[in-house]
Amino acid sequence: MNTVRVSLAERSYDIVITSGDLAGIGPFAAARVRGRRALLISDNHLAADRPIVSRSLELAGFVTESAVLPAGEAQKCLGVASSLYDRLVDWRSDRQTLVVALGGGVIGDLAGFVAATFNRGLPLLMVPTSLLAMVDSSVGGKVGVNHPRGKNLIGAFHQPAGVWIDTAFLDSLPDREYRSGLAEVVKYGVILDADFLAFLEVNSAKVLAREPATVRHIVTRCCELKARVVEQDEREETGVRAVLNYGHTFAHAFETVGGYGAWLHGEAVAAGMACASRLAERLRPDWGRGHAASGRSAADVRSADGAAALAD
Amino acid sequence: MNTVRVSLAERSYDIVITSGDLAGIGPFAAARVRGRRALLISDNHLAADRPIVSRSLELAGFVTESAVLPAGEAQKCLGVASSLYDRLVDWRSDRQTLVVALGGGVIGDLAGFVAATFNRGLPLLMVPTSLLAMVDSSVGGKVGVNHPRGKNLIGAFHQPAGVWIDTAFLDSLPDREYRSGLAEVVKYGVILDADFLAFLEVNSAKVLAREPATVRHIVTRCCELKARVVEQDEREETGVRAVLNYGHTFAHAFETVGGYGAWLHGEAVAAGMACASRLAERLRPDWGRGHAASGRSAADVRSADGAAALAD
Repeated sequence: MNTVRVSLAERSYDIVITSGDLAGIGPFAAARVRGRRALLISDNHLAADRPIVSRSLELAGFVTESAVLPAGEAQKCLGVASSLYDRLVDWRSDRQTLVVALGGGVIGDLAGFVAATFNRGLPLLMVPTSLLAMVDSSVGGKVGVNHPRGKNLIGAFHQPAGVWIDTAFLDSLPDREYRSGLAEVVKYGVILDADFLAFLEVNSAKVLAREPATVRHIVTRCCELKARVVEQDEREETGVRAVLNYGHTFAHAFETVGGYGAWLHGEAVAAGMACASRLAERLRPDWGRGHAASGRSAADVRSADGAAALAD
Repeated sequence: MNTVRVSLAERSYDIVITSGDLAGIGPFAAARVRGRRALLISDNHLAADRPIVSRSLELAGFVTESAVLPAGEAQKCLGVASSLYDRLVDWRSDRQTLVVALGGGVIGDLAGFVAATFNRGLPLLMVPTSLLAMVDSSVGGKVGVNHPRGKNLIGAFHQPAGVWIDTAFLDSLPDREYRSGLAEVVKYGVILDADFLAFLEVNSAKVLAREPATVRHIVTRCCELKARVVEQDEREETGVRAVLNYGHTFAHAFETVGGYGAWLHGEAVAAGMACASRLAERLRPDWGRGHAASGRSAADVRSADGAAALAD
């Protein structure tokens, strides 16, 4: 089990990275929140895991309630958020009621938005089940829903009370989704850690085979890197956090032109990073002669292309 | 012109209390935000003032757009918030677009919620036009909308970039609304400042006559007192901020039983404070023998009843 601390003064929290230990969720939650009521929000893909999480919370003293949504991006909207507010009202929730988000990025963003806005803020526990959610959306406090006029248009910054990452969820992830998540993993190497990028290249077979120790290592490293960025620029105000958007300008274009759903987000990010690095080489041809710029060399940029291919 | 500073680290801001100076809004806003686009949200009661505010913003370099809503509590809902998101999208707003809330508590809470949640947070300028909004809802960052199942159920903490209070708005306020607002003014005296409560009793004729210097003084003092509380407990976590809810438990009961709209909020708070103080005397009869409890004496509690009568 690895633990990564996100240090944000009174909003600090721990990210645990473990494998095959859903029973640990209850004690982890109980040590971090005052209340003993938990609304577990998940989707119908998680029918097998939901009772294990509920049971763990109950053994730790929580009274639990479960909201199960259809899977898919269409749930991430104000209307579904409103129905979750209804559930919280029906259940006579107060400001101590814990919201547990068990699922991928859609569940995390939606449940996080509900937690951010119900009664001006409920404690939130993130239990991400996709690689993308583990290394990206569950860490850093960005929550939100889509608006008919724009993706993630309505949202807030709401840091969780804790993040529990169980890499065993990845065992059953479809290969296309797993590879899509790897694009964000590669991104951390490109933007922040050349050694990590080299590790991914050298160990690409183990990574693609989802070798447990390797997966725990890469998820942990991504969380560490993201935590350090979020600590410097929690609300995306100083520009530091913008580095996490590497490749995302092209990616959003591909997603918009292709239609959301045609591309998985990570697929668009992989292609976006390749485009961004090639554009950078054209704009700054001196990088090709071995000069470092912004702390990264042309070798790094070319590695990025190669590594992005991992996720192709 | 008086200025009250609310010190909340990087979320600090100024409250200006002035009389008959809407032209000052533009320079005040320009000094506090980076962007130069402003969406002015107000209701149809403010048809005379809206162009003055817009013009002031434009003279200070802002491009402005206006959203005018029907007056009334019914506007404070997710559906209207969603239509305001549409306006912001239509207008190609970005994270620098300023939201200006020109109106009473409904406009402030609604526009504040939209500012809190659009693109994960836009800068917000509060221009409260009712006494209740000036001394209570425009200061401290509580924003939100009603849900069919509960008042203010959906919300956030989102501190404004600044608050511009022009007491000239009070000249045209219906007497019932003005007196309702005085209940919250009296509340500050009861909970935090016995001298201020004495001032209100001694000067009740000037207060009720809306004598400009007196009104500026009481609004300024209330903002100062609220600012000190919010500084200690921004997100209502430590219990300090709960003191602002004095009389509100009874008040909510009166509003719920009477039906929202039958009682103005301040009327319910005035009656609620009277009930709370009498309950306190029964629960702690030693207060009646001159012993101080929680820093307040029986004399203060009795004054509270007398002062609350101001707002009856």
